[in-house]
Amino acid sequence: MNHVINAVCVKCGAEHEATPDLTTCRKCGGILDIRYDYDRIRRDIGPDALKKRTDLSMWRYREFLPVREDSLPNPATGKGSSVAALPRLRVGWSPFYRADRLAREIGLKTLYIKDDGINPTASLKDRASAMAVVKAAEAGAKTIACSSTGNAASSLAGNAAAAGFETYIFVPERAPKGKVAQLMMFGAHVISVKGSYEDTFRLSAEAIEEYGWYNRNAAINPYLMEGKKTVSFEIAEQLDFHMTDYVAVSVGDGCTIGGVWKGFKDLYNAGFIDRLPRLISVQAEGCCPINRAIAEGKDWEPMEENTIADSIAVGVPRNPDKALNAIRESNGVVVNVSDDEILAAMRLLGRTCGVFAEPAGATGTAGVRKAVETGLIEPDASVVSIVTGSGLKDVANAMKAAGEPLTIEPSMEVLRTHI
Amino acid sequence: MNHVINAVCVKCGAEHEATPDLTTCRKCGGILDIRYDYDRIRRDIGPDALKKRTDLSMWRYREFLPVREDSLPNPATGKGSSVAALPRLRVGWSPFYRADRLAREIGLKTLYIKDDGINPTASLKDRASAMAVVKAAEAGAKTIACSSTGNAASSLAGNAAAAGFETYIFVPERAPKGKVAQLMMFGAHVISVKGSYEDTFRLSAEAIEEYGWYNRNAAINPYLMEGKKTVSFEIAEQLDFHMTDYVAVSVGDGCTIGGVWKGFKDLYNAGFIDRLPRLISVQAEGCCPINRAIAEGKDWEPMEENTIADSIAVGVPRNPDKALNAIRESNGVVVNVSDDEILAAMRLLGRTCGVFAEPAGATGTAGVRKAVETGLIEPDASVVSIVTGSGLKDVANAMKAAGEPLTIEPSMEVLRTHI
Repeated sequence: MNHVINAVCVKCGAEHEATPDLTTCRKCGGILDIRYDYDRIRRDIGPDALKKRTDLSMWRYREFLPVREDSLPNPATGKGSSVAALPRLRVGWSPFYRADRLAREIGLKTLYIKDDGINPTASLKDRASAMAVVKAAEAGAKTIACSSTGNAASSLAGNAAAAGFETYIFVPERAPKGKVAQLMMFGAHVISVKGSYEDTFRLSAEAIEEYGWYNRNAAINPYLMEGKKTVSFEIAEQLDFHMTDYVAVSVGDGCTIGGVWKGFKDLYNAGFIDRLPRLISVQAEGCCPINRAIAEGKDWEPMEENTIADSIAVGVPRNPDKALNAIRESNGVVVNVSDDEILAAMRLLGRTCGVFAEPAGATGTAGVRKAVETGLIEPDASVVSIVTGSGLKDVANAMKAAGEPLTIEPSMEVLRTHI
Repeated sequence: MNHVINAVCVKCGAEHEATPDLTTCRKCGGILDIRYDYDRIRRDIGPDALKKRTDLSMWRYREFLPVREDSLPNPATGKGSSVAALPRLRVGWSPFYRADRLAREIGLKTLYIKDDGINPTASLKDRASAMAVVKAAEAGAKTIACSSTGNAASSLAGNAAAAGFETYIFVPERAPKGKVAQLMMFGAHVISVKGSYEDTFRLSAEAIEEYGWYNRNAAINPYLMEGKKTVSFEIAEQLDFHMTDYVAVSVGDGCTIGGVWKGFKDLYNAGFIDRLPRLISVQAEGCCPINRAIAEGKDWEPMEENTIADSIAVGVPRNPDKALNAIRESNGVVVNVSDDEILAAMRLLGRTCGVFAEPAGATGTAGVRKAVETGLIEPDASVVSIVTGSGLKDVANAMKAAGEPLTIEPSMEVLRTHI
């Protein structure tokens, strides 16, 4: 933690020591942000030294991460504390593709796809959960808990299982059985709560308090975003530190876009990149409280959750402050897309890039397409679109998007009439 | 192709020039095997030079692969032929985990998990399909075809889409809609055939012949196995070229275990490893024609296909010769496991390693466990178990394996009685 200064409340500015079990601001309850000593980072590591590292995971960016020095194996000796010795899933360094055919189809000059569905539990959330496991270990916890049915839960369950932690995961009773099955396969204790999501969240909070479990609830634990920001480090490095004009990402509770922005700012502050990209914040038309706040220049207000993109169907975002700051600071662009546009983007990513995205994973790309079409961004711009999760997570919606195959008798005569 | 000598028929020994569009032996119809000049490989590359390479994909092993020199970008200049310039998915260099807790639970000293579910379309088959795309490009084809509903089809569809090839994929009408949806998301032309799998295969063969499409039917195209063998190169390199006593893998049509063995033999012949592992061939009890042939010392005979592990439910294996050779040459061990043992192995991999496998993907591990229990292999042995595909491919069976969560009212009093 030599490069960490402290944690600052985004709301009231109060400063806190960056202990491993940090949650929200003790003064006002606001979300905290981890601050770094960028001069020190700059002295210790530069782009050229970084590029030579052989650790192809999110931990290659150790100087930018809020973990103790000895929580990661020393690159020279392989040694470290008991935390460093924990087995862990290989998270990060996901594929980065130049997508020329997709760019042509949507009328854009330069487009890259960052496929974060290629992670151990198939979503960007693995970056946050891998961080949670290390911080839980530093805090001396043996058990980690959260309430979620989505990618946060499965990534916590998987990353914690690898490292030998127990997990308690609270889900509302209506949670899809397939998603619950994944959690249970990782050995999580799944508590299915007869009630609403609010009931579920409240019970998890009480239990975390009573049992002293480590808290992996998004927008409460400030370290999760520090894990997520590694996606931006990778994008920058995969671009050889020459940033694109824009970076597009789908937005739900706001933690991911907040993390994406934090990553680019870190690199800028440490002198690794000489300009910051503008963010393209993409939400579903049926659930876009953050984009609406930006578009109307007002505070955000709750919305209903009407979209197939379940991972970003968040009517009451838990991290609006960091998300709104990120979009505004970056001079960002907001785009809302319909479910049909999301399904079309899924087909487009599959057909032109061989990338299979879940609906929320393709939402960023749907937004890029719409932003070009509507003139929000210039055709000669360069853009990175982040795919946040794999389509294998939601085959039901892929079936909606896919259409029907040609069905014929087993005969060449019949086949010839169709080819 | 400087390191390739030719292709030899496994059945009759006839030799063929290794043209890109090679299929089966023109004399007897037997499956072909690609032969290499190992002295030349040894002169051109050794383990130390290999370890310094930065290309973390299956193509880092270029000297061992049957592709033209200029079909891959020159590492120094980045240049190559139009084939090298094709966009491609990042296949291979999948995670390799030391699995100490899993080893302890099954009473084994040393166990590693090679998680090949972490590939672009989530299975080991991506290695074969990536190879098929390069060979199709070398052959000047624009269209690739196969008949399958499983991982071969989805990996072909994905890898071909990235490179801009058309695909025709023939599936029997009864194919699960979810799997067909994946193919269609990648833009494949899916022909759903009203008939049996045999009808489907026959129609695909006729169409491939008539339209001159590139053939990606397993056990016909000898290059596919050359792609698959890269999993063994990675295992060896991830073990720093100190091989374990055994390598376990699930077996269906025989192509994968054949490829695994080819990879280790390549490394042995080129002097990269100084001993060969023994193979553990694991099949489902309800469909084990290859293991039965080994166990009874007889020719293989067709079996019914009674197992939940659909990716290895192959009653009439298409590549029995290479599979049987591989098991016998390696002084291998055969183990058959029940569906319950497969489901138990899925839970075990999830709970102790954070690895979510499809049934066929966990079958190898189920076999390792049973081989230790029954004394087939020694408790102080070292073993690598290959996970061949992700559990996200088959959530229905994960639900069977997972059991039911604890369902309670939203109340701490109730929760306390359960923790």
